[in-house]
Amino acid sequence: MRHLLDTKTLSRHDALRILDVAEDMRDTQTREIKKLPTLRGKTVVNLFFEDSTRTRISFEAAAKRLSADVINFSAKGSSVSKGESLQDTAQTLQAMGADAVVIRHGASGAPQTLATSGWISAGVVNAGDGTHEHPTQALLDAFTIRKRRFGADSRGRDLTGVAVTIVGDILHSRVARSNVWLLSTLGADVTLVAPPTLVPQDVSAWPARIRYDLDDALAAGPDAVMMLRIQLERMNAAYFPTEREYSRRWGLDARRVASLPADSIVMHPGPMNRGLEISADAADSPRSTVLEQVANGVSVRMAALYLLLAGERDTTNAEEAAR
Amino acid sequence: MRHLLDTKTLSRHDALRILDVAEDMRDTQTREIKKLPTLRGKTVVNLFFEDSTRTRISFEAAAKRLSADVINFSAKGSSVSKGESLQDTAQTLQAMGADAVVIRHGASGAPQTLATSGWISAGVVNAGDGTHEHPTQALLDAFTIRKRRFGADSRGRDLTGVAVTIVGDILHSRVARSNVWLLSTLGADVTLVAPPTLVPQDVSAWPARIRYDLDDALAAGPDAVMMLRIQLERMNAAYFPTEREYSRRWGLDARRVASLPADSIVMHPGPMNRGLEISADAADSPRSTVLEQVANGVSVRMAALYLLLAGERDTTNAEEAAR
Amino acid sequence: MRHLLDTKTLSRHDALRILDVAEDMRDTQTREIKKLPTLRGKTVVNLFFEDSTRTRISFEAAAKRLSADVINFSAKGSSVSKGESLQDTAQTLQAMGADAVVIRHGASGAPQTLATSGWISAGVVNAGDGTHEHPTQALLDAFTIRKRRFGADSRGRDLTGVAVTIVGDILHSRVARSNVWLLSTLGADVTLVAPPTLVPQDVSAWPARIRYDLDDALAAGPDAVMMLRIQLERMNAAYFPTEREYSRRWGLDARRVASLPADSIVMHPGPMNRGLEISADAADSPRSTVLEQVANGVSVRMAALYLLLAGERDTTNAEEAAR
Repeated sequence: MRHLLDTKTLSRHDALRILDVAEDMRDTQTREIKKLPTLRGKTVVNLFFEDSTRTRISFEAAAKRLSADVINFSAKGSSVSKGESLQDTAQTLQAMGADAVVIRHGASGAPQTLATSGWISAGVVNAGDGTHEHPTQALLDAFTIRKRRFGADSRGRDLTGVAVTIVGDILHSRVARSNVWLLSTLGADVTLVAPPTLVPQDVSAWPARIRYDLDDALAAGPDAVMMLRIQLERMNAAYFPTEREYSRRWGLDARRVASLPADSIVMHPGPMNRGLEISADAADSPRSTVLEQVANGVSVRMAALYLLLAGERDTTNAEEAAR
Repeated sequence: MRHLLDTKTLSRHDALRILDVAEDMRDTQTREIKKLPTLRGKTVVNLFFEDSTRTRISFEAAAKRLSADVINFSAKGSSVSKGESLQDTAQTLQAMGADAVVIRHGASGAPQTLATSGWISAGVVNAGDGTHEHPTQALLDAFTIRKRRFGADSRGRDLTGVAVTIVGDILHSRVARSNVWLLSTLGADVTLVAPPTLVPQDVSAWPARIRYDLDDALAAGPDAVMMLRIQLERMNAAYFPTEREYSRRWGLDARRVASLPADSIVMHPGPMNRGLEISADAADSPRSTVLEQVANGVSVRMAALYLLLAGERDTTNAEEAAR
Repeated sequence: MRHLLDTKTLSRHDALRILDVAEDMRDTQTREIKKLPTLRGKTVVNLFFEDSTRTRISFEAAAKRLSADVINFSAKGSSVSKGESLQDTAQTLQAMGADAVVIRHGASGAPQTLATSGWISAGVVNAGDGTHEHPTQALLDAFTIRKRRFGADSRGRDLTGVAVTIVGDILHSRVARSNVWLLSTLGADVTLVAPPTLVPQDVSAWPARIRYDLDDALAAGPDAVMMLRIQLERMNAAYFPTEREYSRRWGLDARRVASLPADSIVMHPGPMNRGLEISADAADSPRSTVLEQVANGVSVRMAALYLLLAGERDTTNAEEAAR
């Protein structure tokens, strides 16, 4: 793997490889994330054009567990805000020795541009771009579903036959997009539930069915229900009903959780708006995998950085050079 | 020790233990702070809801000297500012692998809540909460007093019979509170000096005497005079006289320093308002321990992190599990 | 070397020493910057009173490549913004264990004050002070010129006979000042080109000739043309013509690049205003050394930190102590 830009074009083989390597990042006995010397001497730059403390910290923790040097570059207050181009920023980071650039950007496609422009040879990881994709989020979600289903026996398995229902603002969600592509690649059966104003126009081309009524969707007994975060700043726009109405129709509460099959899980990418898209008891129920998702996020990001930066890379470059 | 939340409930035994371990953090010959591999593989998160570059850097330096990985989490611009709860933030940090959370928070009691809620198992260190406590500051102050008094012979000793006078805005000062409890636990004799408007209502319940006239208090010949920082933003409030008046009546200047016994020391937690609560010559006099306090702060924080995170911890958890 | 404050007083011997040590910081085969254990246990503090992500990251990368601990101190939002003096900040950092302080400050002379005041014994590196100097920028520029000219055979050589033309806002540029002094110390022949309003009054005392017409200056066939960054915030002031006029008269475009001798190089300290002081094709032409400058910046800063902090230092201190 040279980059991790999206899940739409990520092959089943590469996706399973990331998930399997992520399994190796925890100690079999203690379940603690290991400290490994694997990336000593490598430099990972977190290039964040949008604030996202959680995602930044998760990548930072992942890189440090692998003994890489980490440099945080927040585009605010930097020369970027003085009008420097993405090209110049990226080339500068690479010239300083960046082996991987983890980029979060408000514009859909920015990581793709970075990776395919020929500007840099460093590995690029998309940490969220506009309303496009957030591939490591989808990978940690898939990892979490697989782990809950197969436990110690997860390696090598995909999600064939697993039913996943994703609920909320599908229109603006890069988390939803990345999950739809990845889950479908891994054989899962995906249902989307959203208010009619929050469904993308091209949704008929997605490998997922769309529903508008949450209770109907839950009656089908999904294995996993993934609640999306409501962006409160969109609450005043034409898209949304009132908070109360939203919560009543598309929020996950104790009653709805109780209606699910016994081994169904409740997921949320965080940070949660407790009482809005998810009630406190749903968030804290034993079915909730919210904290497992966070923990698995570090493992999955370690796996991605490892595959981009360890031995592997040279081979790929050599292959390319040979073309 | 599982957490370090306050000095009010800190036992004499644990306090002396921290001070004694802090002694070991410096090279006997060079007096330089050592670089130790003790916490390699551990992750310390600085979770700061209030800006405090000094305290954050001191903890960061302490953790790095012990070879821990350090992640700085400033709550500004993070999802915390979007309304995420302390619970979710803390649980997220722990899920990412935090072994200790160093928290500074504007609300008194936040670190206590974090540690006792059952949300997380990571060790919690209070780095200042509201007007409540700032225990590592008091520990470094006690360390500094002990060191000046007993030198290389400090280990195991408490402060019995040492007279300490704390001067300034006692009402709002968490530094004063933490010092009053700790110094009294260690046997010191504590006097508070403040303008009448800046004395807490419940001060009669504190193990300290209160005075309003600085010259009277200094005439008693204290071993240590600890000047508190004036928060200029409170200067316009009803609490305060003018700066000039404050400085004249409760500021430490050369004349007052000269009136002290020959071996008395002058302390300040920093940053100082030179010319307000302390004059430049008082700040820079050979009696001043301001910079020793800063240096000792790193040692004391190393000791606290060590006691929370090294071997110790497992035992405590095992004990708890056995209950 | 105890400090690196300016190039005006930097001896030819010390300058060449930095450049030669910088040569050793890259792997001879791969040209990659090495990871070295040299400064393990040392602490480098980046004390930035002005935002400069690029320079801060370059020093951070340099220190981490040498295995030092790095602490970033941005003066914004710190007690510095509450009025703490430079003296107190610096002494605090040293008391926390800083072995080197890399300082960027808006006031010309601040690093000098820090280093010569006797406040601290840590090594001080000037990372840009007001309109005064930016010595590591000049050193990386000299390194780049030397490398392009002599390749693997660079060690020990100076720039005798090399013609360098520096173009732009000389008046406000610390980069120009540092380059003029260093290049002249190394034997280069320096020409300055600027609009008449942007020439310093005392320029006649500088070891450089001044010209106002860029085409005339380029006709002389310089070996290196160094374009300075235009600070757009000065564009409205009396100093400047319009952007368009500036670009036409003092900007480097494809035509002007084509007029240069075949082996002349085009330099820029970054970040570039593409289309203003330099056109995109000039910036990206094979003659452009912009990215080499960035990469060499890390090597040169490694060399400076190494010379300030490794074995060397003790000797110097011992010498001083012996005075």
